[in-house]
Amino acid sequence: MASSCQNLIAALKDCLKYSDCVMKDGHKPSECLKEHFNELPEECQNLRKATFECKRGMLDMRKRFRGNIVGSQFEYTPREPPPPPTASQTPDLNSFSTKPTISSTMTDSTKPFVLYFAGTPNGFMPTVLLEELKAINPAVDYDVEKIDISKNIQKEPWFIKLNPNGRIPVLVDRSRNNFAVFETAAIILYLAQHYDKDFNFWFNPATQPDDYSEMLQWIFFAHGGVGPMQGQLNHFNKFAPVDIPYAKKRYLDETKRLFGVLEIRLQDRDWLAGPGRGKFSLADIKTVPWVRIYKFSGIENLDEWPNVKVCCHNLFRVMRMEFHGKIGLGGPL
Amino acid sequence: MASSCQNLIAALKDCLKYSDCVMKDGHKPSECLKEHFNELPEECQNLRKATFECKRGMLDMRKRFRGNIVGSQFEYTPREPPPPPTASQTPDLNSFSTKPTISSTMTDSTKPFVLYFAGTPNGFMPTVLLEELKAINPAVDYDVEKIDISKNIQKEPWFIKLNPNGRIPVLVDRSRNNFAVFETAAIILYLAQHYDKDFNFWFNPATQPDDYSEMLQWIFFAHGGVGPMQGQLNHFNKFAPVDIPYAKKRYLDETKRLFGVLEIRLQDRDWLAGPGRGKFSLADIKTVPWVRIYKFSGIENLDEWPNVKVCCHNLFRVMRMEFHGKIGLGGPL
Repeated sequence: MASSCQNLIAALKDCLKYSDCVMKDGHKPSECLKEHFNELPEECQNLRKATFECKRGMLDMRKRFRGNIVGSQFEYTPREPPPPPTASQTPDLNSFSTKPTISSTMTDSTKPFVLYFAGTPNGFMPTVLLEELKAINPAVDYDVEKIDISKNIQKEPWFIKLNPNGRIPVLVDRSRNNFAVFETAAIILYLAQHYDKDFNFWFNPATQPDDYSEMLQWIFFAHGGVGPMQGQLNHFNKFAPVDIPYAKKRYLDETKRLFGVLEIRLQDRDWLAGPGRGKFSLADIKTVPWVRIYKFSGIENLDEWPNVKVCCHNLFRVMRMEFHGKIGLGGPL
Repeated sequence: MASSCQNLIAALKDCLKYSDCVMKDGHKPSECLKEHFNELPEECQNLRKATFECKRGMLDMRKRFRGNIVGSQFEYTPREPPPPPTASQTPDLNSFSTKPTISSTMTDSTKPFVLYFAGTPNGFMPTVLLEELKAINPAVDYDVEKIDISKNIQKEPWFIKLNPNGRIPVLVDRSRNNFAVFETAAIILYLAQHYDKDFNFWFNPATQPDDYSEMLQWIFFAHGGVGPMQGQLNHFNKFAPVDIPYAKKRYLDETKRLFGVLEIRLQDRDWLAGPGRGKFSLADIKTVPWVRIYKFSGIENLDEWPNVKVCCHNLFRVMRMEFHGKIGLGGPL
């Protein structure tokens, strides 16, 4: 527990160090915490609250985490200093436009996977599982091939051969005869089947068939509900060339309704699937990358759905933060 | 082959018998075929074409069907006479508003399943698999509990306990401690896992992992793409209280694009998943109930996507037509 708190504190310090309060305004981190708390990025605010809870023992981390790698869940490697922001660039932790800093040397690489990637919720989704698997087994490593979706690279013939739908992400498994998998949910189920044989992040269909089915139900709920509907909301809010209040309201209402469904599920549990209070699984990995961009989608906060907020928060705490910090997925909500 | 043609001919005769050409206009079936072919329902026209192809041996049915129940695939039981149409009711084979005629006696029933159902593409989807499974094993039987979605019965607290999303269909498995499954794709995967242990309609994850993954990829493609996008198209075409040309065009274009993706996949195969030309599987069962309501969605015909048309056509030929005829899912496209 103490170790977990120390890592949280390290993460908090790091968060403060790169905040506008310190970097732009020149305050000390301690001053920012005391006098400018409400101006801090939500990430720092939440890390502060989590640190507080951790110290007070209000949150028993171990109960919120799978048993097999307890002790490592809050390991925190200080992140790389971010590039200095230009005047027009205000870093937005809730944005998903940040590009990964990982580059691939595709021709010489012997890493088992290639992930064709862009910085969207769907793009990030497999990286969450890949990083978790890599933390258990370093041999599960992957190249990231960035696809510039603004230039429609994903519609080029070579990509259509990988995924006729012309969408990222696509995973290619070099170790299994370059087998290609598209659709986020199919990718994470594929990775689980072949590379998580101990069922750390899913459930054994043979011995835990009901948990396995419940996990699939929530994966499909997110895949056919949250993703497409929040995606439409983003379209009408951000990208449509015309202002259509009816459509904006329709998809805002539907996204909120879907968050409400998650809230019902999470009212007496920590994670979407699994016995008791649940287990961190593919169902959460599938859902949270969408929920967490709520601000981008025009939803001010998650206060209406307190259990969803806690679940997301937990997921981003247990995740390999050092990696996802780098590629822009950010820390806790 | 001869037997298949005979069953097709029986289906064609039955189709003609209840057509307006015979019932309303008083022509003989043979006259309708010769002189009024273009006025016949598309179902009859397609059955006529299929009969022709069958006789000519142009279509080797066996290649288009799984091997284990060859001989039964075109068994055809004459349908019940439909209720006489009223003046305002023009039967529309492309509509999905027809209610099932099956009633359930829930309290006394010992059938292993209850399906909470409404006459929508998602409602029909599990019935396709249930009927196929029942044809192999009559013990796989089910009650249909009709849910009046126009009265929001699916939002009532008792239903929310079954599916917090408040959507049909939901399957309850009495034989497995009333385990409830929501989300169409999760339902058909559940049924396959527990009640299709010979892999008639799916692929063995252990011995056919790539086929299994490809099936999942196409299931997710339909679940996150075709269903939600065609659903939005239907909303803006049929149900929205305001006329929004931008949204109509957006979802029409996207639905057509998605049909185009299916077309790419089917260009050298009969079914979406499986080795060689593929095998009729959950992927097709997941996809076709949406594609087939193309007319309802404002798409005149499937001529742009000839392989999609053939695939749908095949699926509705191999399906238990006597059942789906009754509940309004209709025959071939």
